[in-house]
Amino acid sequence: MLPFFKLISADLEAVEIELGRVLIGEDDLLNQTATHLLRAGGKRLRPAFALLSAKVYTDDVSGVWPLAAALELIHMATLVHDDVVDEADARRGKPTVRALWGNEVSTHTGDYVLAKALIQVSGYDRPLISRVLSGTCVKMCEGEIIQMHGIYQANLRNYLHRIQCKTACLIESSCKLGAVAAGAPDAIHHPLGRFGHYLGIAFQVTDDILDMVADESRLGKRVGGDLRQGIVTIPVIYALNRGGSAAERLREIVENRSKTETEVEEAIELTRELGGIDYGRHIAGAYLEKSIQQLKRLPDVPARESLRQIAEFIQIRAY
Amino acid sequence: MLPFFKLISADLEAVEIELGRVLIGEDDLLNQTATHLLRAGGKRLRPAFALLSAKVYTDDVSGVWPLAAALELIHMATLVHDDVVDEADARRGKPTVRALWGNEVSTHTGDYVLAKALIQVSGYDRPLISRVLSGTCVKMCEGEIIQMHGIYQANLRNYLHRIQCKTACLIESSCKLGAVAAGAPDAIHHPLGRFGHYLGIAFQVTDDILDMVADESRLGKRVGGDLRQGIVTIPVIYALNRGGSAAERLREIVENRSKTETEVEEAIELTRELGGIDYGRHIAGAYLEKSIQQLKRLPDVPARESLRQIAEFIQIRAY
Repeated sequence: MLPFFKLISADLEAVEIELGRVLIGEDDLLNQTATHLLRAGGKRLRPAFALLSAKVYTDDVSGVWPLAAALELIHMATLVHDDVVDEADARRGKPTVRALWGNEVSTHTGDYVLAKALIQVSGYDRPLISRVLSGTCVKMCEGEIIQMHGIYQANLRNYLHRIQCKTACLIESSCKLGAVAAGAPDAIHHPLGRFGHYLGIAFQVTDDILDMVADESRLGKRVGGDLRQGIVTIPVIYALNRGGSAAERLREIVENRSKTETEVEEAIELTRELGGIDYGRHIAGAYLEKSIQQLKRLPDVPARESLRQIAEFIQIRAY
Repeated sequence: MLPFFKLISADLEAVEIELGRVLIGEDDLLNQTATHLLRAGGKRLRPAFALLSAKVYTDDVSGVWPLAAALELIHMATLVHDDVVDEADARRGKPTVRALWGNEVSTHTGDYVLAKALIQVSGYDRPLISRVLSGTCVKMCEGEIIQMHGIYQANLRNYLHRIQCKTACLIESSCKLGAVAAGAPDAIHHPLGRFGHYLGIAFQVTDDILDMVADESRLGKRVGGDLRQGIVTIPVIYALNRGGSAAERLREIVENRSKTETEVEEAIELTRELGGIDYGRHIAGAYLEKSIQQLKRLPDVPARESLRQIAEFIQIRAY
């Protein structure tokens, strides 16, 4: 249990039970794949954001449990489909649904998990919740498509747009809607939404840095995964724009569709030498600062402090 | 324009415009795939059911347009994913999104189209609408999975459960929710839902018969597609259960995973000789009769007559 989750530990347990209950249905095979997804773990970050945001407004957040479960289900559904598209055989060091049951079952499992999320959300009376969430689902698909056809492209604008769609949007929705589901007014859920937006960007930038510099045993996969897939992230974009012969050599490797492992390592080293990793950390820090500014608009309650600690934790994670 | 759509022809045009408007977004590639889906045609049967059901209760059904569009979008999304899973290169005689843009783009396009449907639905205040629709999405996934692992299995119970999930559920929702979105009371939308349920079963049974006996130029694909894929439908299930040497030979072909085209033709001929086609028509007729019984609970208005004509049309289609 991460320390800033203490305030909501009982709620997170309730959400875990809710997830198990929701995902078990009539079909044996879907029950197997769903159970596998549940056991594969994950930090339950999106439920946590929703619950903490709700706690900024009120103490009893049991009404937010179904939404919190739905947010995790949406996240799970996108991971399952991403694994199909990326032909990924492992995630967090464990075999994917695709690796165990094939692409067909994975595609349907993703649809099924998403549909289960919709059922969860349909219980709420405030139409804002389903409106924001469905908009988020659209944005997440757009993000995936941008990533797909922006492959091998090094463009900062394109990168930021992509990670807003892919990651920030759902974290923004989690923070905002957690408060909405708890009955909070605009003055509470607006700043929380913006907090989530900036934090989400910082979170993805940090993830992209870790994909290059993390300890492989903690990452649960080999470093350089993005490079191998032709996905160009902020450290590499910065490094390429520095110009000169090192940047030229980096571009050569990045654009080579059949790079060797030695070349991947060389590209990471070049990116680091050209200052790409430091620049990424700087950008993550700037967005985290913006997210913390938003928290100042909220009442000074313990949940606000937990959200601030999460922002700090993400900053530390990048190093 | 099918004759029983006359009453709602202006509304169907409005839904078509709505579909175009909804599907066009910021991303060029998604706009291309979405436009392709729109142009690929389709009978817009689900929107028509929603609109006619609404017309049973009231004349001005403009409030139902967003729901009608959403129903078609959900249907489209499932077709796109089904084509990925079935590795289908053509549908209605035209290339699929998968054939033109590949599996990855198809997977995301399906998710995107579904998410667009959710946005449409999120505009309604009656929570029953999103509750019923999300339940339907779950059922449709279950149906696909049942079909997938029930492959080469000849079991009537399994078959009926599968087609209820795959087809009847969304038609039931279309009929029911069209009325709900128009503000109709239980006494109107309950019988309409049941009408849709029975009609949906008859519709799929008819489709499964046509997959064996239709004129190939009208079907837009070769007959025997289900047999080739190992999907056992009601005519074959009946024929297999007749026993004897003809049924034995049929079972041999059905279970052979690499049948020749001559064997597919032989299986269709055996199914026909064993009375499977006639039995399928009989079952479709029985469900159509049940659907028409439900209509009798509704006020005697022109829209009710149009719904009855659709049921009759499906019956004729099977011959």
